Amino acid sequence: MDVEIIFEERPELRDPIFVEGLPGVGNVGKLAAEHLLEEIGAKRFAVVYSKYFPPQVLVEDDGTIKLVRNELYYYSREGDAGPDLILLVGDYQGLTPEGQYELSSAIIDLCTDMGVKRIYTLGGFGVGKMVEEPRVLGATTTLELVEEMKENGVIFSRGEPGSGIVGASGLLLGLGHNKGIEAVCLMGETSGYFIDPNAARKLLLILSKLLDLELDLAKLEEKADQIERITAKLKDIEKMEKEGSFEDLNYIG
Amino acid sequence: MDVEIIFEERPELRDPIFVEGLPGVGNVGKLAAEHLLEEIGAKRFAVVYSKYFPPQVLVEDDGTIKLVRNELYYYSREGDAGPDLILLVGDYQGLTPEGQYELSSAIIDLCTDMGVKRIYTLGGFGVGKMVEEPRVLGATTTLELVEEMKENGVIFSRGEPGSGIVGASGLLLGLGHNKGIEAVCLMGETSGYFIDPNAARKLLLILSKLLDLELDLAKLEEKADQIERITAKLKDIEKMEKEGSFEDLNYIG
Amino acid sequence: MDVEIIFEERPELRDPIFVEGLPGVGNVGKLAAEHLLEEIGAKRFAVVYSKYFPPQVLVEDDGTIKLVRNELYYYSREGDAGPDLILLVGDYQGLTPEGQYELSSAIIDLCTDMGVKRIYTLGGFGVGKMVEEPRVLGATTTLELVEEMKENGVIFSRGEPGSGIVGASGLLLGLGHNKGIEAVCLMGETSGYFIDPNAARKLLLILSKLLDLELDLAKLEEKADQIERITAKLKDIEKMEKEGSFEDLNYIG
Amino acid sequence: MDVEIIFEERPELRDPIFVEGLPGVGNVGKLAAEHLLEEIGAKRFAVVYSKYFPPQVLVEDDGTIKLVRNELYYYSREGDAGPDLILLVGDYQGLTPEGQYELSSAIIDLCTDMGVKRIYTLGGFGVGKMVEEPRVLGATTTLELVEEMKENGVIFSRGEPGSGIVGASGLLLGLGHNKGIEAVCLMGETSGYFIDPNAARKLLLILSKLLDLELDLAKLEEKADQIERITAKLKDIEKMEKEGSFEDLNYIG
Repeated sequence: MDVEIIFEERPELRDPIFVEGLPGVGNVGKLAAEHLLEEIGAKRFAVVYSKYFPPQVLVEDDGTIKLVRNELYYYSREGDAGPDLILLVGDYQGLTPEGQYELSSAIIDLCTDMGVKRIYTLGGFGVGKMVEEPRVLGATTTLELVEEMKENGVIFSRGEPGSGIVGASGLLLGLGHNKGIEAVCLMGETSGYFIDPNAARKLLLILSKLLDLELDLAKLEEKADQIERITAKLKDIEKMEKEGSFEDLNYIG
Repeated sequence: MDVEIIFEERPELRDPIFVEGLPGVGNVGKLAAEHLLEEIGAKRFAVVYSKYFPPQVLVEDDGTIKLVRNELYYYSREGDAGPDLILLVGDYQGLTPEGQYELSSAIIDLCTDMGVKRIYTLGGFGVGKMVEEPRVLGATTTLELVEEMKENGVIFSRGEPGSGIVGASGLLLGLGHNKGIEAVCLMGETSGYFIDPNAARKLLLILSKLLDLELDLAKLEEKADQIERITAKLKDIEKMEKEGSFEDLNYIG
Repeated sequence: MDVEIIFEERPELRDPIFVEGLPGVGNVGKLAAEHLLEEIGAKRFAVVYSKYFPPQVLVEDDGTIKLVRNELYYYSREGDAGPDLILLVGDYQGLTPEGQYELSSAIIDLCTDMGVKRIYTLGGFGVGKMVEEPRVLGATTTLELVEEMKENGVIFSRGEPGSGIVGASGLLLGLGHNKGIEAVCLMGETSGYFIDPNAARKLLLILSKLLDLELDLAKLEEKADQIERITAKLKDIEKMEKEGSFEDLNYIG
Repeated sequence: MDVEIIFEERPELRDPIFVEGLPGVGNVGKLAAEHLLEEIGAKRFAVVYSKYFPPQVLVEDDGTIKLVRNELYYYSREGDAGPDLILLVGDYQGLTPEGQYELSSAIIDLCTDMGVKRIYTLGGFGVGKMVEEPRVLGATTTLELVEEMKENGVIFSRGEPGSGIVGASGLLLGLGHNKGIEAVCLMGETSGYFIDPNAARKLLLILSKLLDLELDLAKLEEKADQIERITAKLKDIEKMEKEGSFEDLNYIG
């Protein structure tokens, strides 16, 4: 069982678009993909097990276990209501470089089998400092896609990300391109210090246009507000530390 | 020889129950399984060798060597005397995540071949502090099993273990479930600081009921007493250190 | 996809000579091979992908991605104008020892298929101190080649390199020799502290003679001058530090 | 090329005895096997290459390279002059646990093919302190062999080595035993701080009796004397340090 994809259903989809959102910087891609999945009510059709995942089961609140895995969902639409979708989500990526390649190769094989027309991978772009207005950066497999994405508000900025794109969000582009599938990586700008629902929200604003979907982003806004309140408090603490407000406390303590 | 199971005998068993007890937190599972094995006089029928174990032989007291391995035992009973058993014990688990998956997959294949009906994996649940009355926590593959285990005194506590179950005790549940075998992990609560015969004893109290076995737990109690005397002494030393009783000694020394 | 070589063209070459220049000490081999490639206008005919490379895509300035890979180029010449060439370049070597073997084995298979007559691998020989006049050291698969290289100015110095040659530059010799292909490793002496275009230049002075090529090395000289200016500044700074010139600054600061 | 054994000759041997001496604690096994090989003038008949060795070539004094490898030698004797021998020597063992298993498995396959009757693996037993009169400790695959070895001066001491035998010297016993080949590990007692020709000499004193060979051990004695002179000097220095003889020097310096 190098990589095993167990199908629960074999949905018939028309030229589906594939969306990946696995854990990564700020968990931006994971947050975005899981929000998308919930909002559109996508249906699970397959699970992915692999020896390249951690050798572990998770224990659910009801006492039952779940073997570490990724999950595949689909969302199909009538006639002209927009393209059908496949979503890849999960709590883990492959543990080793070789595992990353094996897993992404298996997913690209599935994309080929299911006639996937385009891949969007969702990730975070860590900048190491607080970001007020996160940009959505892009990278694609073709120049035509660069233009198309620019028209939809995606930023292409020379040297960002300088180190390339590591993991599934990168490999699905590279391996997909080798199999003739066009692909785009959308990266929400994030500090990388916290999970970042705000970057995920910005990312979904663009993705929903690209996928012709109307999404309610209220839950992500709520989560973003929570995170903001926490970081604001942390900033206050930091400020007080700098101004020496804690010195008195130390005196007493 | 990725994973090689060498059979010494091919026992005919009726719907056997499989019990795993390999090394882990507090060696609770190993202690329990090995005590069970001795008390019922189970018979070895196969050994498991693998390149995923340490590349090492152990030297016995008589000067002969033993290649690192796991061992499989069976215990068969007449008529209604209770279910037949298979036990998996050993000094090592797989060294790498991939090795863990390969070894547990091979064991699940064996379970399928031998018609195993249910799997119990035994482990420790480390809480990082001394435990007076260890609970036995559980995780299972189905909700029905959760209920059955609760009736037998197993505790299911939301968020325990929060990090899931790592290694063979977890994988045998996950991989077994995928092959349609029902499975339960029983975890004896333990500090994790010492090998913990008391947690193993509590675990066997429940397991013996589940397996319809009468077990003499005197040896485990003895071992538990020994450990308790040692930890009591360590506590005394710690107490004296806190109270400064050693300062005088330092004075003299 | 352990190692996948995708051909874009199948050039017909006469007894080609194979030249490898992948990243390594001071990037001497990479600099030399890439300069050679540009100067002769070699043409790409294949790319090498592998799960032994980092699981990563690089983002180009135009926003498109490039899956981590090695590349194969060829250069064919009319009649007596000198031997045909194959060049191997890229940004990465295999991540693991096993990956190194798998990649170099695949390359040697390609060499056998394409009738390669001789292999030159290009590398750096790190000496851990600044080098004014870098030597070009050699190692070969046969004694006859040692003599031939000596006649072309290559230095063979007992105990250099004492630790052997690690990575593709070494393996292509060893694995090539096992398949009956003669091979030479040319190592430009370098501090190993910086990328070293000067060592690459010296290496190409010899290689161009061996390959019967006229190469313009002006660009490498330019790069070497740049590096020299930088290192000269660093030396000044070091000197000032030793002489205490910074103490005054500290006083002020 | 997981493990590749390239034969240069196919010697016909009668029930040969296999002797392994690869690098390890104090290089005792390697020193002993290589001395044995030289003294009897054994002839190389095969080389072992593997992706589990370091990805490296060694450079010989004449400028030619040698791919990292192990080597197999044989020594055949007329009629009753004693058993034929196969020797395994080399500069490296497998880099990873899995590599160790793969390499030793390949060697055991070769032993089976060549009708090997018994295996001796040679190693060091590190005790972490200087040893005046090194013992030769043993471990075997059968109780009969324990007795036979005791009669030849090999020591069997309960709990030594407590941690078992790691690497080829252990695996060849374990894997050999599984294939029905009897095997003995002989371990020369050594501090483990230096390469230890004296432990190797003691080991060969016993092995030469077991193999019915007359060996000149003068060269090993010489090497042992050299090491002894070095360690004696180190002891002097240590003594002086303890006695404070260096304090005066510090005073001056």
